[in-house]
This record gives sequence, C-alpha cells and structure tokens, in this order.
Amino acid sequence: MKELSKLIGYRESVKVFDATLRDGGLVNDFRFTDEFVKALYLANVKAGVDYMEFGYKGDKDLFDEAKFGPGKFCDDEYIRSIVGDNNTDLKIAVMADVGRCNYKRDFAPKAESPVDMVRVATYISTIPTAVDMIETLHNLGYETSCNIMAVSTAQEGDLRTALDIICQSPVDVVYVVDSYGSMLPEELARLIEFYKESANKYGKSLGIHAHNNKQLAFANTLEAVGDGVDYLDATYSGMGRGAGNCAMEQLLSLLRNPKYNMFPVLQFIEKYMNKLREEGVVWGYDVQYLLTGILNQHPRTAIAFTKEGRSDYAEFYKEIVIQD
Amino acid sequence: MKELSKLIGYRESVKVFDATLRDGGLVNDFRFTDEFVKALYLANVKAGVDYMEFGYKGDKDLFDEAKFGPGKFCDDEYIRSIVGDNNTDLKIAVMADVGRCNYKRDFAPKAESPVDMVRVATYISTIPTAVDMIETLHNLGYETSCNIMAVSTAQEGDLRTALDIICQSPVDVVYVVDSYGSMLPEELARLIEFYKESANKYGKSLGIHAHNNKQLAFANTLEAVGDGVDYLDATYSGMGRGAGNCAMEQLLSLLRNPKYNMFPVLQFIEKYMNKLREEGVVWGYDVQYLLTGILNQHPRTAIAFTKEGRSDYAEFYKEIVIQD
Repeated sequence: MKELSKLIGYRESVKVFDATLRDGGLVNDFRFTDEFVKALYLANVKAGVDYMEFGYKGDKDLFDEAKFGPGKFCDDEYIRSIVGDNNTDLKIAVMADVGRCNYKRDFAPKAESPVDMVRVATYISTIPTAVDMIETLHNLGYETSCNIMAVSTAQEGDLRTALDIICQSPVDVVYVVDSYGSMLPEELARLIEFYKESANKYGKSLGIHAHNNKQLAFANTLEAVGDGVDYLDATYSGMGRGAGNCAMEQLLSLLRNPKYNMFPVLQFIEKYMNKLREEGVVWGYDVQYLLTGILNQHPRTAIAFTKEGRSDYAEFYKEIVIQD
Repeated sequence: MKELSKLIGYRESVKVFDATLRDGGLVNDFRFTDEFVKALYLANVKAGVDYMEFGYKGDKDLFDEAKFGPGKFCDDEYIRSIVGDNNTDLKIAVMADVGRCNYKRDFAPKAESPVDMVRVATYISTIPTAVDMIETLHNLGYETSCNIMAVSTAQEGDLRTALDIICQSPVDVVYVVDSYGSMLPEELARLIEFYKESANKYGKSLGIHAHNNKQLAFANTLEAVGDGVDYLDATYSGMGRGAGNCAMEQLLSLLRNPKYNMFPVLQFIEKYMNKLREEGVVWGYDVQYLLTGILNQHPRTAIAFTKEGRSDYAEFYKEIVIQD
C-alpha cells in the first residue's frame, strides 16, 4: 500500500542520507580534496540532509594508504578536521564492510568520535560476523545499520532467515540494497514487503540504496518511500560506482518536509560536481550498465567496458550473456 | 491494479512505438541522413518494433522547407524512398499537430500511402479540430491516435470532458502524454485510471508518451504498461526534445514477447546514435530539465539554458521559480 499520494504532505520519520563520498569514492579511489569535502558538508547542513557518509572504515593492514584518499579509512582525526565538533543537526556516518575492516581495533567509543552511525555492509553468507559487528558497535554507542548486498541474486528463503537474525540484533536500520541496479519498482515492492515483516516484528527502520543501471534509482527510491521505507540514500549528481545512485537533487525535489532545501545542492553541483566530470571522473547511466542490470550481474564488466572506452554494446551484451 | 508482475509472461496487445525521428527530430530540425533513416527502419524491423514514426506532417505554407529535414513534412514519396512498399510487419506512422498541418490537403487515401497511422497531437483547447482531423483521417483509411499534450497542467474536469468527446470519435488509440516530464508514477497511475474510464466505455486502446526530465520516463512507461496501457512510445538512446524519452533499449529489456529483439537496437545505437552525439547533437537528462519538470513547466527555458552552455543551476532555478 503506497503512501506516496500522501507526500504532498510528508512523513516526519523520513531521513535523507548522503552517500556521495562513500559510493562516489568507489569511482575515484576516495581522492576528494578537503575543500570538496568541507563544501559538501556545508551544503548538506544547509540543505537539511540528515546523514552524511564520509567513506569506509577500511583496514590499513589490508589496504595501502598510499593508494587511496582518506575516505577509504575515515580516521576520526580526518573527519574532525572537516567537521570540528559538528555542532549541527547533520549526523556523520561511515561504512564498514564485513571482512575488510578491523572493527575490534579501529572504533573508539562514540563519546570520543565524531561519527554517529556505522553502516555494516554484508553479504548473506557473512551475517553472523555482521551481527557481531553490529553488537560491538552498538555497545560502543553508535547507531548502526545493516546493508545486505546483492539480495537480487539471493534465495528468498535465505534472505528471510538472514533478516530474522539481523532484526534480532540491536541494529537500528536495515537497508534494502539493489547492488546491481537490476530491480523494477514492482519487484522492489515485493522485497520490501518481506523486509517489513521482520522489521516490524522487531521495531527496526528500513532504508533503501538504489543503483541507476536501468535509470530506475529515483523511481525505486520513490517506490520505497511510498512503501514505508524511511532512510533514503542519495548522492550529489547521482555519483557512485558504475551507473551511480539516486541523485540528491532528484530526491529533494520530491520531499516536502520544509527542513529540506534544494538551493545548496544545486550550488554544490554547479561548483564541484561538474568540475569532477571535467577532470575526467566518469559515472552515470549508460547502455552497458543497463545490460548488466538486465542480467542481474555485478557491474564490474560494464565498468571495465567504460574504462576501455568501448561502445560496441551488442558485442558486450553477447560477452556477458554467454558465460560458461 | 498493476499487471507488471505478470510480465515475466507478456501481454499480446502491447505495441512498441518508435518515435526517434519525430521527437528526436525536434532536437536537430529533422536533419537525419537517408542512411540513418534507412538503417533505423531496418533495425526496427529486425527488433520487432510495431510502429515507426517518421516525423510530422507539417504544413509547407507555415514552415519553410529549407529550414528543416524531410521528417518535418513526411511526404509519401519521401517515406516510400526509405521503405519501398514496406513489406514488413512494421507499421509506419506520422504525427499531425492541430493548427500546424493542412489535413484536408496533405493526406492521400491510405490505399495510396505508405503511412498506416496518423497521430493527432492536440491541446485540450483544440479538441473539436482534433476530432475533425481524426474523422477525416479515419475516413481516408488510416489508423489514428489522439495525443493530448500538456495534461499535467489541465483541470481534471476539462480533461474528463475532452476524453469523453475524443473517445466518441473513431480514434483507435488515446495517448497519455507527460509533455513536461513532471509526473511521478503514482500521479500517472491516477491519470490513467480516468483515461481508462472513457477508453473502456468506448473500446479504445491507450498509449503512453513519457519524457525523462526526472529520469522517470522508463519508470512511468513501466507504470503505464502495468496499468493496462498498450501503446508504448520509446526512442533510440532516449533521443527527444530536452531530456528526451523512454529509451528503446530500456523498454525492450522489459518486454518478454519473443518477437522483440535487443541486438539490432544495440547495433544501431553504437553505430548511429553515438555518432549523433559526437557531432554535437545534445539531448537527455540533466539538472535543468529536472527543475522544469519539478515546476511542471514546458522545458523551453531549460533547452535555452542548455544551448547557452550554462551550468548555474541555482540561478536558473530562481529564474524559473519567480515568474511574475
């Protein structure tokens, strides 16, 4: 039952979550200048955005610091150099991937950190570790979310079991993640229905993270908010891996809560996002991403196709359809 | 009640309508080469597309032939030079605008013409003329559609009256047209519901023509087909005025009727559509079109903004919000 028709009013519980530095960081190895990050922070504050994700909490034993910008690791000192004491309504988030972070070593107690929320990204196969991370981070005082990736290729029964386990943890938000940008709004609606079964049972909020392979990231976010999902991921200019995400400017154009403000977003885009594109950073919808989306595949082949400057779509489609 | 969940099967009555030359022609004054048009025709035949629109039936007393390519006028001889006797399953269409064509002079009887369908484009204010055109063209033997433009700014009562008048004419298809790309899927669904009231009463089919200002052209076409709309407009690479249309490659990725084939579309795009872009022809989603879409305005200001090479979105938004 969609509530979207009511959105000429608005739902207090809806939160806008800016994932530009994190999902966008996958495009440029997190090499954003401090000027960019500070301006983005200020734009988010002015725009009334609820959460801003600074990047990943990557394990420095696994990743070479020289090969990435600071958003790959999100040291508290780095975040503090941007936000100071963050005396604003904007909450700060970081993402931690199961198996690619050292969550027992790298998180200070919340009272000593500028971070408010940690988003735990997991596959269905690593749910027990995700739950251990959520418990650890919750006990340190952080808000937590659990982002289950690649669910469009999961068995429904496995996903139901995973949701039931996760929703019994102290997690605050469970995200529906369309990793491959493969879902149609109707399919997403079905998925949300059974996320809601577990979430409602244990009093959890739901979130949506959409990819734009089929140019449906905004439409799917719309579908989700109409179906009762509250945490809405977006990125400026839709910047994100491959086809990118739901664009912040699209999302704010929809939401009627008077606290949201479109102008700072437009000003940031014209000054900073267009410059990134001019510098040769490439993301966004293109035919090759549509094709991996259709086939419900990870976009890595389409990303390689893009990097190689190819445009032989028909040949590419043959390559990815026929995989022995 | 959406039927989309059934589309893992398919509905026989769904038709794919290629509007590339017509809506795309608005971008380049219909200056497509004969090679382009012939290749597009062959791609459509191979892809199983149902209708191909060649352009407008413009009145040569009103429009200077030297200023436009042949798709502005769509003489039968021109179309025949591309399709010969068109011994294929692909039907040929042209559009005729109320007030911008000479429908009493410029249409031969269907038996003498390569054209199968004439689409009559009208505003609500010109419905009686549209009905006269439909009757005239129907009597000449053509299939007809009525495309009521700019309905997102119409009063619901006026639109209901218009639909009731049109559906009593011999028209075959009535199109829901989102001229400004302003509609959300839920809003479109409401509109379709009352198009269906008139259409079902008089046994008419419905069509959808979406614009991509909010990156919702595909999502809205999806919504429409799920709601029972049968005639689906698309253009290769989404080429069309301003933000463009639902892309043919997106639409065919959805439809399961085995007669449709994606490969010829991909081959055409890589050979011809990308070349148009390289030659400097500009269309497609961008922030300025989102903004006119949000405000439910004609995209002409955004098209001018694009042509002037501007990127000061915030200033532009102020200009179009504040219109005395």
